[in-house]
Amino acid sequence: MRITTVGLDADDTLWHNETLFRLTQDRFRALMADHASPEALDAKLAEVERRNLALYGYGVKGFTLSMIETAMEVTGAEAPSKIIAEILAAGRELLAHPVEPLPGVRQALDELSRDYRLVLITKGDLLHQEQKLAASGLGERFAAVEIVSEKDAATYDRVFARDGDGAARAAMCGNSLRSDVIPALEAGAYAAHVPYHVTWAHELADPPTGHPRFAELASISDLPAWVRSLG
Amino acid sequence: MRITTVGLDADDTLWHNETLFRLTQDRFRALMADHASPEALDAKLAEVERRNLALYGYGVKGFTLSMIETAMEVTGAEAPSKIIAEILAAGRELLAHPVEPLPGVRQALDELSRDYRLVLITKGDLLHQEQKLAASGLGERFAAVEIVSEKDAATYDRVFARDGDGAARAAMCGNSLRSDVIPALEAGAYAAHVPYHVTWAHELADPPTGHPRFAELASISDLPAWVRSLG
Repeated sequence: MRITTVGLDADDTLWHNETLFRLTQDRFRALMADHASPEALDAKLAEVERRNLALYGYGVKGFTLSMIETAMEVTGAEAPSKIIAEILAAGRELLAHPVEPLPGVRQALDELSRDYRLVLITKGDLLHQEQKLAASGLGERFAAVEIVSEKDAATYDRVFARDGDGAARAAMCGNSLRSDVIPALEAGAYAAHVPYHVTWAHELADPPTGHPRFAELASISDLPAWVRSLG
Repeated sequence: MRITTVGLDADDTLWHNETLFRLTQDRFRALMADHASPEALDAKLAEVERRNLALYGYGVKGFTLSMIETAMEVTGAEAPSKIIAEILAAGRELLAHPVEPLPGVRQALDELSRDYRLVLITKGDLLHQEQKLAASGLGERFAAVEIVSEKDAATYDRVFARDGDGAARAAMCGNSLRSDVIPALEAGAYAAHVPYHVTWAHELADPPTGHPRFAELASISDLPAWVRSLG
């Protein structure tokens, strides 16, 4: 078999993530309604998140710190303390949120795990990603779990060398063109895009239409047949 | 050779960490001086950190969130916004702090890396630990880097199986009896304790004096000779 290893993204591929961030952001807008319009608040939060990304990386803790910083900036450092307490609580709830696999995920993983080595490849807070995987009940399907700080071609090269037979014999699947598809193709792997209904602005990119190792799938349920078709 | 792999802790073993947290905590005390005595503040912060540990894990971002939460609790949710802004800044400075290897570290690693596979095994924020390793200039000495959410016997068992020839053929070295020494011994590895001058209360434990695979070393400079003595 040409393909021996299948890499899978976690957030918004196996379970909801961005939707929960958006709900938290809605709550943040409501909290700040006396101080900023939703549009102005969103723009400021996006700016703060972008500024902090290199320092905080991806995940709930950095998002919580960026919301607090945004609240300070929008109010001229006069944010009512109640708002800060509410932001802290929202962050903790996001960390403790129950994890439910997306429709079709369990069956697709069961089918794939009979013939392929499955590797979970995800960004975010180390502890939180481990906790979500445990809470999802999907942990046993994976031969390896790689929680990484950045998803670039070098990451896929390293991960598929360590946990598989190299990128040329691996297929990657995820909801982000920018993080899951394009760098995996660059590393020499096959890659399938399974869109999620919302995407964080930071993760947007153009699809590599026409690339010989790329597929656009409507659902993760289509993944096993596509992987098998690669030979 | 019996020993093929040497595991090394990072924070307070290869470079300063707890000292920097303590300096940040001093700054927090000064910021809060109008609201709480140093003793009351320390006790509250320790309580909040303990309460959040399962959710936040180890690292600067969780520490920053816990300082903010402590400030809210101590002031009855009336913390002046300026204090929150200062705590955020202190957290960012802690994340961006320069990294300087402790005395003797570079030489000990150079000596060890000629004969043994070196594996860095550390807790904390994934991105921040990678950044510190890069900033330290020590990265090339390590054959593998494992950033883990918890250091227990199962962790050492898994890491030394994956990155070495199993725990029985590995030696672990670090400043924490609780995280580096005791669980490594439990996993079947050798373990050396190299104390740092301050230890986070959470990491304190009794030394396993008399254990046949344990050594207490005064300095990391003594590590290469001890590892060689194991055969």
